[in-house]
Amino acid sequence: MRPYELIHRKREGGRLEDGEIEALVAGYVAGAIPDYQLAAFCMAVFFRGMDDREVRALTGAMLRSGDVLDLSAVPGVKVDKHSTGGVGDKVSLPLAPLAAACGVKVPMVSGRGLGHTGGTLDKLEAIPGFRVDLPVERFTALVRDHGLGLIGQTARIAPADRKLYALRDVTATVESIPLIASSIMSKKLAEGIDALVLDVKVGRGAFMKTRADARRLAETLVAIGRGMGKRVTALLTAMDQPLGLAVGNALEVVESIALLRGGGPADLRAITVELTAEMVLLARLAPDLAAARRAVEAAIADGRGLRKLREITEAQGGDPACIDDPGKLPRARHQVAVTATAAGVVEAIDAEAIGLAAMALGAGRARVDDRVDPAVGIVLSVKVGDPVEPGAPLCVVHRNDGGEAQEAVATRIRAAYRIGGGPAAATPLVLERIAEP
Amino acid sequence: MRPYELIHRKREGGRLEDGEIEALVAGYVAGAIPDYQLAAFCMAVFFRGMDDREVRALTGAMLRSGDVLDLSAVPGVKVDKHSTGGVGDKVSLPLAPLAAACGVKVPMVSGRGLGHTGGTLDKLEAIPGFRVDLPVERFTALVRDHGLGLIGQTARIAPADRKLYALRDVTATVESIPLIASSIMSKKLAEGIDALVLDVKVGRGAFMKTRADARRLAETLVAIGRGMGKRVTALLTAMDQPLGLAVGNALEVVESIALLRGGGPADLRAITVELTAEMVLLARLAPDLAAARRAVEAAIADGRGLRKLREITEAQGGDPACIDDPGKLPRARHQVAVTATAAGVVEAIDAEAIGLAAMALGAGRARVDDRVDPAVGIVLSVKVGDPVEPGAPLCVVHRNDGGEAQEAVATRIRAAYRIGGGPAAATPLVLERIAEP
Repeated sequence: MRPYELIHRKREGGRLEDGEIEALVAGYVAGAIPDYQLAAFCMAVFFRGMDDREVRALTGAMLRSGDVLDLSAVPGVKVDKHSTGGVGDKVSLPLAPLAAACGVKVPMVSGRGLGHTGGTLDKLEAIPGFRVDLPVERFTALVRDHGLGLIGQTARIAPADRKLYALRDVTATVESIPLIASSIMSKKLAEGIDALVLDVKVGRGAFMKTRADARRLAETLVAIGRGMGKRVTALLTAMDQPLGLAVGNALEVVESIALLRGGGPADLRAITVELTAEMVLLARLAPDLAAARRAVEAAIADGRGLRKLREITEAQGGDPACIDDPGKLPRARHQVAVTATAAGVVEAIDAEAIGLAAMALGAGRARVDDRVDPAVGIVLSVKVGDPVEPGAPLCVVHRNDGGEAQEAVATRIRAAYRIGGGPAAATPLVLERIAEP
Repeated sequence: MRPYELIHRKREGGRLEDGEIEALVAGYVAGAIPDYQLAAFCMAVFFRGMDDREVRALTGAMLRSGDVLDLSAVPGVKVDKHSTGGVGDKVSLPLAPLAAACGVKVPMVSGRGLGHTGGTLDKLEAIPGFRVDLPVERFTALVRDHGLGLIGQTARIAPADRKLYALRDVTATVESIPLIASSIMSKKLAEGIDALVLDVKVGRGAFMKTRADARRLAETLVAIGRGMGKRVTALLTAMDQPLGLAVGNALEVVESIALLRGGGPADLRAITVELTAEMVLLARLAPDLAAARRAVEAAIADGRGLRKLREITEAQGGDPACIDDPGKLPRARHQVAVTATAAGVVEAIDAEAIGLAAMALGAGRARVDDRVDPAVGIVLSVKVGDPVEPGAPLCVVHRNDGGEAQEAVATRIRAAYRIGGGPAAATPLVLERIAEP
């Protein structure tokens, strides 16, 4: 196998055989094939794409480059959820305990935030003491004993994806559906799951800006999972304005706890219930989606979801008192409102701009090795469709002294809000459902 | 300037500013920008192209990465010819002395052969003693005193192109018209020329397989030259069957001497006269192309071209006796005919296959560091349109004992010939002329 031939063939729109993809990935991980050949290959894939079989072969090759967890000793159906990333997307925090409370086994391996989107690990670590870097044996025991475990990706899971993603990140080859899909699925399938729910975000604050692109990604993800013998359901969900009101790590934990107490913003609750219900359905713990939704609503109403979050927090070393009293979570020194300058109706909120403003406060990372401040962030006061008056707050900025100056953040936030004559309505939250036939 | 931004913008079909291209090339040569980013960039250019201004900026940046010869001390108009490469293309050998005999100053910097096409340097070095690795001062003196100098590219000419070409060669990004054009022109413009004639080959034995691609390349080359203040004329010429009869280094010198003596194959003579006449015209040594052709024909007829070849051979350390008696050139141990197996008319000869057969004999290089055997090669006995009988020779193979076995070479050659019911005619040699308005 000459890497040159494979690059050339892909460049000309041809397809690669399974064995060729396997050799390309193995050679790259072993250092026998240099970065520059993979960079050219990835750019050729960006323009030419890959068919379902090629994407499956690439996923399999990256999956097999590392460890695959074996959860066969854990009874029950193992189901995870993965989101392609959004602003204010803290769904995993209430979803994982709710699904576990409904009887699903949830082995959740999450990532950290980068750029304008946050990461589940950073949010969990906002709870003092919460540990996400647990050994595999401990993780397996958590899933067995508590119905869920929440950890970070280890260096031994899909190392080929890790190396390739770092290369794509500096060669402008990230935004390729086959490469995104194989990257996601190689990590998720390494978790030893039976089924997977995918939340593919669409809109200005998402990776996928158009519905057509998001649908293609969702279909590719579902096809890979099916080809690997897993049950997969994907929802396309709107990510134009931030999800919920809170953007920032501890602030999002607070909002998640509120949801599990029966409160929280309506959009966050709706999407959390929907995604959790899909997990319950895939685990065959409900006869249909309506029954699954009722089961999830019941786990909120009777507090089982909240108790499960308290239980896993304690099991993973976190302070359970923070779940009982979110006031004990890290809190920023200053809370400053950003106010509207004119009257009108909120027509749009640019989620990406809000995410970048939160990042500028220290809530997120511009680079992989940046540290995040768990306390800082933004809590929106109004969302799309809400009326505003001059001087009324658009949001409250939670800041410490390290981040960008308040004036600069306020300018970003005002620019993110489009206020007009109205009326305006938010797009529907769940846009499409792509499931196995 | 972040290289990532430039790759991303080109990937999305945007254009780069002059200063951005300059910084990209300078950063790459300095080692500050890694191979993998340039590899991704080149693949993006393959798919998105570059406009005339971008190509000119890239050419200029690569040109300025190294030395630019200053021939201003040499009186007269300095004109070179460049061919994109073909099989049996020995035109430079008779053309350079003919142009010099007509009064053109010819500072010719040539390359070596690679793959199925030969290189002028290898052909010149088939003349015992002929040196092509001369210092710049000596080269300038040759052009001044003899009207021509024939040397190889030094490491100091366009080092950015050298580094980038080596990367393109292993990342399947060679076949991109903006990259090809800037590579050619950065080297040619470094010669200190006033004008340039380009022979853009089209056909199965050429780099450009279609007339449309060849035209685009020619137009790009002419536009770069014009943008840099040089006069440039390009001819599109056919490269389906080999040019002339001889393929192999010393064998091509023999054929070139025959031409300068008033003989040689008609196709080689026609194209040599045409390209030389374009040089005479660009040097303003003739009022029109017809007069320029007559001047070249006269330099053949009265032996001035041959004397000029003898003169430059002696001046560059070569044995002039080889020009007087080509029998003194290196000669292969064995001459074996490959014969036709059926009667018919030669309908086509695959130039690339003949070039590869000559390479297999040792006349060319599969890799840059391979050594060539000056003596071996192939002399065609029949060309397109000629009748053949069973047992009559298709060609004579000149072989030494190191190369591929005679049977294997004969199989390649027979496969390269298509013999049918005829009649068949070769395509016209000069397909198109692209010149300044």
